[in-house]
Amino acid sequence: MYTPNHFQETDNTKLLGLLRANPLGTLVVATETGLLVNHIPFVADVAKNKVCRLRAHVPRANPLTSELSAARDAVVIFQGANGYISPSWYATKPVHGKVVPTWNYAVVHMHGSICIRDEADWVEAQLEELTQQNESARPAPWSVADAPADYIKRMIAALVGLEVTVTRIEGKTKASQNQPAENQASVLAALESEQPASELLAMMRTALEDTD
Amino acid sequence: MYTPNHFQETDNTKLLGLLRANPLGTLVVATETGLLVNHIPFVADVAKNKVCRLRAHVPRANPLTSELSAARDAVVIFQGANGYISPSWYATKPVHGKVVPTWNYAVVHMHGSICIRDEADWVEAQLEELTQQNESARPAPWSVADAPADYIKRMIAALVGLEVTVTRIEGKTKASQNQPAENQASVLAALESEQPASELLAMMRTALEDTD
Repeated sequence: MYTPNHFQETDNTKLLGLLRANPLGTLVVATETGLLVNHIPFVADVAKNKVCRLRAHVPRANPLTSELSAARDAVVIFQGANGYISPSWYATKPVHGKVVPTWNYAVVHMHGSICIRDEADWVEAQLEELTQQNESARPAPWSVADAPADYIKRMIAALVGLEVTVTRIEGKTKASQNQPAENQASVLAALESEQPASELLAMMRTALEDTD
Repeated sequence: MYTPNHFQETDNTKLLGLLRANPLGTLVVATETGLLVNHIPFVADVAKNKVCRLRAHVPRANPLTSELSAARDAVVIFQGANGYISPSWYATKPVHGKVVPTWNYAVVHMHGSICIRDEADWVEAQLEELTQQNESARPAPWSVADAPADYIKRMIAALVGLEVTVTRIEGKTKASQNQPAENQASVLAALESEQPASELLAMMRTALEDTD
């Protein structure tokens, strides 16, 4: 990913936060027959405050599973808020007109090696952790144990675990950090006037506060 | 992508609609040194009601440009609304408990071959079309001609065009089509009770109306 310095995000806590808020990863695996793309929610294992492993599961029927008899290179992409930034929003537009459109976004790429984990215990633990990640903030969190045990056993038999050993992480938060302060303020004001409030506004506010 | 029949989206008008509503594509290119991932807004060329070509631009400084001296395999991924579906939302949960979480989403993958277009005219036309795509619905649309001509000329010189010849399109709309009607209705009701209304609700409503 092309990432000028002002857009680089290297804070591991923020990168993990983006992943947990947007756990539907885009998994891309390079195979002899081309690029295989799947969209799957992930949980992350963290060591020394850094994501070291991603875990997920897919139906056994997913053709990806037959491509993973050996470990393969993969990237998992997590995407946060994004949106168009109109040149009309820049305070400097009426001054000199030297403005162009752009698109702001926050993303994390986790590169590494992917392999199959086809053990029922591993898949069950992953299901429980993923469920907790998605349910814990809900008023009455559902848990895997709420379903009949024999039903869950049959479900797990139809699933295959996927494990990504993460070797490289790239984070980018493109939030108008390269604009003069007056344009950052005018873009935030334009987004604030939109109803309902966009996720992009929240993302940009946080990113621009951090660079103060 | 693993796509059971009930989630397959083959309607070209809908696939193009998803792209135009979510033009920030995730471009993945396979190179000798690994998978290169970039996030770039695209415009689409349509022939016989089907996307045949995608066009974009990147800064000349993007390392991707030096990998494209010859055409390479690529995929561009466009992502619509997505979100977690709690088992607690299913009408059948209190009846038999045989429910598990899932994640709904709408995506389009456009596979093909990517090459450089390093002609100023081509880049200028792409800029104008992309601007129109993003500005046309705004009250006072900005256009490239609103900026000083010499400024735009310098900007264009710093950009390189990218053209993807699309050879295969895969669309997936995962919107609980595999659930009984009572669960579809109860999931929509759960999403309707959320404030602000989620994009997922609108996506699911459209998808489930289509399958009626």
